[in-house]
Amino acid sequence: MNEFRKFIENYTTLSDNEWKEISACFTQRTLLKDEVLLEEGKICRYLYFIETGLLRYYISKDGKDITKFFTEAPYCFTSQVSFTNEKPATECIQAIEKSIIWQTTLKEANDLLELKSWNTFVRKLIQEVQHFTERILQDIQTETAESRYRKMIETNPELLQRVPLQYLASFFGIAPQSLSRIRKKIARKNRT
Amino acid sequence: MNEFRKFIENYTTLSDNEWKEISACFTQRTLLKDEVLLEEGKICRYLYFIETGLLRYYISKDGKDITKFFTEAPYCFTSQVSFTNEKPATECIQAIEKSIIWQTTLKEANDLLELKSWNTFVRKLIQEVQHFTERILQDIQTETAESRYRKMIETNPELLQRVPLQYLASFFGIAPQSLSRIRKKIARKNRT
Repeated sequence: MNEFRKFIENYTTLSDNEWKEISACFTQRTLLKDEVLLEEGKICRYLYFIETGLLRYYISKDGKDITKFFTEAPYCFTSQVSFTNEKPATECIQAIEKSIIWQTTLKEANDLLELKSWNTFVRKLIQEVQHFTERILQDIQTETAESRYRKMIETNPELLQRVPLQYLASFFGIAPQSLSRIRKKIARKNRT
Repeated sequence: MNEFRKFIENYTTLSDNEWKEISACFTQRTLLKDEVLLEEGKICRYLYFIETGLLRYYISKDGKDITKFFTEAPYCFTSQVSFTNEKPATECIQAIEKSIIWQTTLKEANDLLELKSWNTFVRKLIQEVQHFTERILQDIQTETAESRYRKMIETNPELLQRVPLQYLASFFGIAPQSLSRIRKKIARKNRT
């Protein structure tokens, strides 16, 4: 749980009393590898912090999974529209590694907004998530799958090792075979 | 300026005194049709409210413009990463209709966060922008250009009338000729 305190302190200062109030609202849970935490059509009832592990967000479309993005520990996550508006989610969330997560309810998360530090944390966090989402959107709008893959080799090579090929391929919007070809091409170039 | 007060009150309640404080921080400006408000590489120094008019966000890539999204009045906008972190913007903002906007600086916007109503407004607004961005991302990841265009006919037909064809086409990630073909196809179907 101390990981969560450290995480919040990246965004704002936190007194011991404030941390006591915040931590009292969260309970721990373990997700098995491949466990689905949220299904499309269900309401996401919790705001989560992932302490260890890795998640993917995906959508089912015509019998196929399309990976929207990945969330690596440590980070906060939820299905935002569903959680905030208490409406059925339009996405699924799945652990692709065994993960330790902490959860709190909408009511508790909203009550905590009275704490100045939590309020600042939430505002800065949503802003950061918005930046990430915009970055992915801009990349998809302006880059090819190959150049997005090359960018990930530079910025987050560990993630490429942890995510199964088919999830990566659907994140880049291409078939697994096409991603294999891109991988081989890059490996060949690196050898010469 | 009263439009801005009404806009904020969609998100939170506002006393006359709070509104006085907020409105004192904003100054008005008019943008001509096609005027570029922010250029890529420049720091976005303001948070804006657009009272009337229409904007597009775009990126220059290999000599071509790619439209990221449109912002219709009334709404708040800025180049978020650039404004918040005082870093060069990776996008341009252009008025595609004559627009009346209001602007405030980063310092003033941050000072206003001490006001509970402004704080709540900003948090809810960023959350909403995040929802919009995620929606566009999900549509791009899961839908064809044609089905995204059809969706816009249903959800926002007025916007389609206001935006020049080439900007729409680049928003849907296709050539203007392809969008013309889709338009003709849909018009033919509607006649029969």
